[in-house]
Amino acid sequence: MSDDQEAPLINGVEHKICEVLPCVDDDYGGVIVEMKTPMDAKSFVAALRYSFEQWRSQGKKGVWLNLPLSHVNLVEPAVKEGFQYHHAEPTYLMLVYWIPKAESTIPLNASHRVRVGAVVLNHNKEILVVQEKYGTLRGSGNWKIPTGVVDEGEEIFAAAIREVKEETGIDTEFLEILAFCQTHESFFAKSDLFFVCLLRPTSFDIQKQDLEIEAAQWMRFEDSASQPITHKNELFKAIHRICSMKMEKSYSGFSTQHITTFFDDKLGYLYLNKQEDMK
Amino acid sequence: MSDDQEAPLINGVEHKICEVLPCVDDDYGGVIVEMKTPMDAKSFVAALRYSFEQWRSQGKKGVWLNLPLSHVNLVEPAVKEGFQYHHAEPTYLMLVYWIPKAESTIPLNASHRVRVGAVVLNHNKEILVVQEKYGTLRGSGNWKIPTGVVDEGEEIFAAAIREVKEETGIDTEFLEILAFCQTHESFFAKSDLFFVCLLRPTSFDIQKQDLEIEAAQWMRFEDSASQPITHKNELFKAIHRICSMKMEKSYSGFSTQHITTFFDDKLGYLYLNKQEDMK
Repeated sequence: MSDDQEAPLINGVEHKICEVLPCVDDDYGGVIVEMKTPMDAKSFVAALRYSFEQWRSQGKKGVWLNLPLSHVNLVEPAVKEGFQYHHAEPTYLMLVYWIPKAESTIPLNASHRVRVGAVVLNHNKEILVVQEKYGTLRGSGNWKIPTGVVDEGEEIFAAAIREVKEETGIDTEFLEILAFCQTHESFFAKSDLFFVCLLRPTSFDIQKQDLEIEAAQWMRFEDSASQPITHKNELFKAIHRICSMKMEKSYSGFSTQHITTFFDDKLGYLYLNKQEDMK
Repeated sequence: MSDDQEAPLINGVEHKICEVLPCVDDDYGGVIVEMKTPMDAKSFVAALRYSFEQWRSQGKKGVWLNLPLSHVNLVEPAVKEGFQYHHAEPTYLMLVYWIPKAESTIPLNASHRVRVGAVVLNHNKEILVVQEKYGTLRGSGNWKIPTGVVDEGEEIFAAAIREVKEETGIDTEFLEILAFCQTHESFFAKSDLFFVCLLRPTSFDIQKQDLEIEAAQWMRFEDSASQPITHKNELFKAIHRICSMKMEKSYSGFSTQHITTFFDDKLGYLYLNKQEDMK
């Protein structure tokens, strides 16, 4: 059905005016419409109604409608035809329509942002810390570990390595997730997951990034732990306490195992405690 | 400035036609426009342009524009005025405009869906398992642990307790996150985090939910571990291996600590290894 450019036959009559909108089947009995060429609102509504006749007769369930920013003229007609918003990214808006009478099984939108904090300890019991040009600690004199946002499609451990490199120029290897923290309403209604990653440095000369970073240094771990912010903030305090135990080899976080996942045999990374024999 | 209904003065002339759109300041030097009453496209564009004059002169940075589904007529004019999509939920579309010449610091959209799997073990070395009416294991004869999606604003451990209760009627207490798994493109470009939670049952009579669950039972752990799916799927296998170690008290996952968080003193839950003395 997808991208079928032939005029369809209805009751033996060739309908040249309307064609099914360009679509592909999804894995859940629905279709995904991907608008690529420009279309005026009137032709769009006619084609959409014609398409719905076909989809209903085929027993289709969810209809996804991907409208690039360039097709913004079709948003209002789509909503007037009964579509709801599902999610949006800078360049497109995804709408959805649930055909069956039965309860919708349309999956929920992404709910969490994921961030990393990078603990980089060297052999001199120094921790890699920065002062940022922006953010709530700006100008406070406090030093913090490098932090940043995990991109869509990026591994958590890779994001930690990338952020350290970007902010300080230091190369690192991932060792463990020491802990993680979940908070809510970090960004409109969305929640936040913050993963504290332990990294081993493989280079030591700091080359700080200028855009966001005011200063970067190797700081004696004891000095970092005794900063006012460390005493005041429970997460900061917990990270230092975990690091202390880690340096005494009395703490075990989660390290990675590359696996195929639960249902769909996708590749992914499992983070688990490998302190014990996991062979 | 927000909700100011008085006619503003420009060069001493009262402008009754245009008022600044209803908006509130955000915490990052920007404004959030929340459209509540209906408006036609022409009046909206006039008010928007007038508002931008004010916001520019005030040095505002990001302008967020929240358009409920009922204001879909304003999406096209907003995009034509230079707004981009940021995110959308079923009932609204959020657009954004970055005023300064400097690089945008608009935060990224939520990137991850978060799911839980619940390992519930009783004192008879039995594990709580279900067969689903839908999903990829449907009709395969394999039994799986209860799983589900973490809602926006919901604690991971609470989601695990809720899913077990919904699917099987069993009451539980959260013990630990045993492991977690990150995969990508689980849903369009979005990534997926799957947390394996260990729960202690506090009730034992199963009352299965009919909508999604075909069957639910307490199954001998050995029988669950020897299912074909457990051998075939690495995540399934890893979960059983971790459970075996846990039953032998030779594995430690992450349990919770209620804390205030890094920068903004929000309350949140830290998940960390408490096997060692964390007092």
